[in-house]
Amino acid sequence: MCGIFAYLNYNVTRERRYILEVLFNGLRRLEYRGYDSAGISIDSSNLNSESLVFRQEGNIESLVKSVYQVILKFYDSLLAKGIDFMGLSLFLLIILALIWFHASMLMLFCFINFFLFSIHVLEECGMRRTHASNWYFNELWSVGKPTQFQDLEEEASAGSSFSDAKFPSSNGQPKELFLSSDANALVEHTKKVLVIEDGEVVHIKDGGVSIYKFDQAKNNHGGALGRPASVQRALSILELEVEQINKGKYEHYMQKEIHEQPESVTTTMRGRLIRGGSCKAKTVLLGGLKDQLKTIRRSRRIVFVGCGTSYNAALAARSIVEELSGIPVTMEIASDLVDRQGPIYREDTAVFVSQSGETADTLLALEYALENGALCVGITNTVGSAIARHTHCGVHINAGCEIGVASTKAYTSQIVVMAMLALAIGGDTLSNQARREAIIDGLFDLPRKVKEVLKLDEEMKDLAKLLIAEQSLLVFGRGYNYATALEGALKVKEVALMHSEGILAGEMKHGPLALVDENLPIVVIATRDSCFSKQQSVIQQLHARKGRLIVMCTEGDAASVSVGGSSRVIEVPHVADCLQPVINIVPLQLLAYHLTVLRGYNVDQPRNLAKSVTTQ
Amino acid sequence: MCGIFAYLNYNVTRERRYILEVLFNGLRRLEYRGYDSAGISIDSSNLNSESLVFRQEGNIESLVKSVYQVILKFYDSLLAKGIDFMGLSLFLLIILALIWFHASMLMLFCFINFFLFSIHVLEECGMRRTHASNWYFNELWSVGKPTQFQDLEEEASAGSSFSDAKFPSSNGQPKELFLSSDANALVEHTKKVLVIEDGEVVHIKDGGVSIYKFDQAKNNHGGALGRPASVQRALSILELEVEQINKGKYEHYMQKEIHEQPESVTTTMRGRLIRGGSCKAKTVLLGGLKDQLKTIRRSRRIVFVGCGTSYNAALAARSIVEELSGIPVTMEIASDLVDRQGPIYREDTAVFVSQSGETADTLLALEYALENGALCVGITNTVGSAIARHTHCGVHINAGCEIGVASTKAYTSQIVVMAMLALAIGGDTLSNQARREAIIDGLFDLPRKVKEVLKLDEEMKDLAKLLIAEQSLLVFGRGYNYATALEGALKVKEVALMHSEGILAGEMKHGPLALVDENLPIVVIATRDSCFSKQQSVIQQLHARKGRLIVMCTEGDAASVSVGGSSRVIEVPHVADCLQPVINIVPLQLLAYHLTVLRGYNVDQPRNLAKSVTTQ
Repeated sequence: MCGIFAYLNYNVTRERRYILEVLFNGLRRLEYRGYDSAGISIDSSNLNSESLVFRQEGNIESLVKSVYQVILKFYDSLLAKGIDFMGLSLFLLIILALIWFHASMLMLFCFINFFLFSIHVLEECGMRRTHASNWYFNELWSVGKPTQFQDLEEEASAGSSFSDAKFPSSNGQPKELFLSSDANALVEHTKKVLVIEDGEVVHIKDGGVSIYKFDQAKNNHGGALGRPASVQRALSILELEVEQINKGKYEHYMQKEIHEQPESVTTTMRGRLIRGGSCKAKTVLLGGLKDQLKTIRRSRRIVFVGCGTSYNAALAARSIVEELSGIPVTMEIASDLVDRQGPIYREDTAVFVSQSGETADTLLALEYALENGALCVGITNTVGSAIARHTHCGVHINAGCEIGVASTKAYTSQIVVMAMLALAIGGDTLSNQARREAIIDGLFDLPRKVKEVLKLDEEMKDLAKLLIAEQSLLVFGRGYNYATALEGALKVKEVALMHSEGILAGEMKHGPLALVDENLPIVVIATRDSCFSKQQSVIQQLHARKGRLIVMCTEGDAASVSVGGSSRVIEVPHVADCLQPVINIVPLQLLAYHLTVLRGYNVDQPRNLAKSVTTQ
Repeated sequence: MCGIFAYLNYNVTRERRYILEVLFNGLRRLEYRGYDSAGISIDSSNLNSESLVFRQEGNIESLVKSVYQVILKFYDSLLAKGIDFMGLSLFLLIILALIWFHASMLMLFCFINFFLFSIHVLEECGMRRTHASNWYFNELWSVGKPTQFQDLEEEASAGSSFSDAKFPSSNGQPKELFLSSDANALVEHTKKVLVIEDGEVVHIKDGGVSIYKFDQAKNNHGGALGRPASVQRALSILELEVEQINKGKYEHYMQKEIHEQPESVTTTMRGRLIRGGSCKAKTVLLGGLKDQLKTIRRSRRIVFVGCGTSYNAALAARSIVEELSGIPVTMEIASDLVDRQGPIYREDTAVFVSQSGETADTLLALEYALENGALCVGITNTVGSAIARHTHCGVHINAGCEIGVASTKAYTSQIVVMAMLALAIGGDTLSNQARREAIIDGLFDLPRKVKEVLKLDEEMKDLAKLLIAEQSLLVFGRGYNYATALEGALKVKEVALMHSEGILAGEMKHGPLALVDENLPIVVIATRDSCFSKQQSVIQQLHARKGRLIVMCTEGDAASVSVGGSSRVIEVPHVADCLQPVINIVPLQLLAYHLTVLRGYNVDQPRNLAKSVTTQ
């Protein structure tokens, strides 16, 4: 829900306008995380003037405009042209407007969670003097969140580290430092970064960078703040390409990410599926889990914990995990688990699903599960994220950077990872062998099928045109595709701003049927699986109430699902039942996308929402 | 979703019109179970003419009209006036129109589930001869469902039984027999009934009534139908008063049942709460569970299974069961459990919640859990219902007959029973003593508080007037009142036909917040409990998005929940946190009721719905 970016130069001459553009571009890279309001601060302490703070409601471009109008004018009139432009730091805070307007700066910082800092030092000459203030670190240390650094100066290669707190200081070499809470804002400058952990303080002075860690345990016991320990940290390499964070030929990130799914699903599976070779058996290899598989298999429960789309992905995989492992899976919405303080024990395996790996609610649930002794497994899309670091083991979904606020490719990759998780936990019993191999074959074939279902793009656009003026939409699913119904409805809700609701088809007669009439559009997911005949009966009953149906069915089934040919039918390719949600969500993603564009809303920045919900 | 009623007379003279009125009244008593269409059949086999079948879409009154127009005319012209009016049976079938129009009579019978038959024999003279045909039993036996009988003739008192198949036949005594699938249709004629079990066939001939049972096991093995065994069955007394099934001073059953809640909650607790006396401790006594409590306490999971409102009631109680027992509670929507064939084991306790005790999905889930060896507990409002009979133990909620299709008093009584269940399972640990006693005190005080919250009737009517034209409504709750949000939204959805959705407040930022603007009305439940401050934050955030808020809070909290006094506030009495859902649902029930009346819809017969969903 927020982000922060900063730039510092030391012994490097830069035009004021250039620096501002660097900063604004950094902010633009962060904007997907939230876009309610933004601000910048200019540290002019070395000029013996007050630090300046600008706040602007609205998106980054509003800020850019006001900054150009005000700041440049201010500097021009205060200061002689050509004077050293010493320190400039800019931060972006996107939190709720209310908090923004009532809280002091210090309080605002308390709302900044989970930021990563990166300092990128470029060798450049010609600067007279640079002073990088450390005020923001002083403010921030108590929040203590991950940070990324990089120092090219010391011939940095992955694995080398800062030797101690003193090394970088006072050597007088020119440097440029980039700090950000999100790797996206750094990748165009550098890929070599330093991640800062919880509870650490970064001190930058005269081009020198030091990291300190305070002993949290001592503080918790009410004692005075202990002396910080100097920290040595290895450099990491960002596995992110600049192309990944550009829209390329697409108009919107969401559109791009929907269409990337054949590739993202492929990278998710890369190196993890084994078929043929010397070992004839088809099997799954999840490196991050292999030491814990025995423990997981002995769990009394598996608890899936997530929020929003990640919860839906877990729900989609619940069935196959239960089937192959025989272990009951309990679904928990992260905030509800924390609110209830539900029982979690050592015998439980808790699986935390989050694209960003920084979702506040999921992190709180993780802390709670850790306190209660559960084995904690993380499934995230972000290496080095809080959830990835704090869980005992986990699987990275490798879907690539996702920028669209409405999660699409992360959802399908999460399901794929959890299907592989089911295969891994399920073990290699003979009784399940045929089933297991069919699923593995299905996984191999999945990218091709996703490519195929993407051909429905135009058809879904046409459907979106029909639904453009609707106020409500229901999506009925069951079994494996109950999750598809929830997720499809969530997509439409969050970007197209239409009141759509995903409903378990089995609950239809227990209330929702009352809403059905000839006006309300209803999507029914009725692809082939063991629930197909039940869904046919649901379709008949909805049809009898004159329901306005849009039925999603397996290719060739149109006649079996459209009573009297009166329903609109979406035919999708068939895959193994437990993987069908990966296929079925795609047309609904496309529908949500086109509905949003046609309704004239901002696809990548849906009203009131942000990419990662890093506050409760 | 359907009901059946029949009348037979033997050696009793009755006016044709009288008999028809008896039959139509019987049907009217059943109409709350479904009201799509109805039919009657007149058995004229003794007149050597074909049996007559009439079908009519719409409610009972449409059928009455057509029957009077057609049948009476038919008899008048066919037959000389004054001729014996020998046998007349009438049946009511309410199933989906589609099935109705496409299926044959025989197929229709296959959709009739769970009917009870009752035969009430009144001594009356002056009849020449009555022949009660048994054709419908021949059709029905294979469905094999519970049936009720009564025979006053044999000085029937509870406990006496039919001695054998031959006794009632050919003694020539005058008799009138009433058969029904629902006790409501019998209580104005008699309270002494005979319940027929699954797989039994009833044979009626010449005023004699016999019950036979076929050996199902033999049939399952593909063998020929064995000879039926004659069954002896004790008479039961219906615990139902005629007043219970009349509306009294109220305009609608739903309204009556909402206002009955102080009494229904009282009867639910009667004899089960113990305070003071020789044993000073406050405690709970649930007779139906006491032999199983030890086993339940050793469960590895408690699985709550239900549909619609019953599911919501279980969800409302989940937290307190978890807290007091320390056992994780898994929530299962009955149809989803069956669709998924989710793992259930001997170590699990599965609790089945259903007002009618006949809900098809819940029954299927029960069968599934029984097969898997779980300890099964039933919580129903209907003594002798399938769930009550097939579970290992259970608790009757004693809420009294509920006729309104939208469940109200059964919901609150279910929560009360499950709170008592939590107290019973929780045991008597010292560490929980204060908490336990506070809840018991809260239970004692609950009827008074329910009475108090009912005073909001007029206020909710005013609110309904404001919302009359809305298309959508969101209800946000969390913790104990997540269930209140779901149930409140369900009430509005099913009777007021407004697209309302209950949302976990913790999920707000993960999608639903996008819908918030100055038009969409949003109910936020923010009564005092451990989640109160989180709900205050939710209110602030919704307010910042200009949300149109209706906040439900604890008495005296209006200022703490209405930011700048801009929200509409509903103040409700405070009770122990885990009982608060019982109070909080009442204003939402009233809102749904008034919205429905104001919008001009049928409160007691909401579109497309039926009271008990006895088909999948």
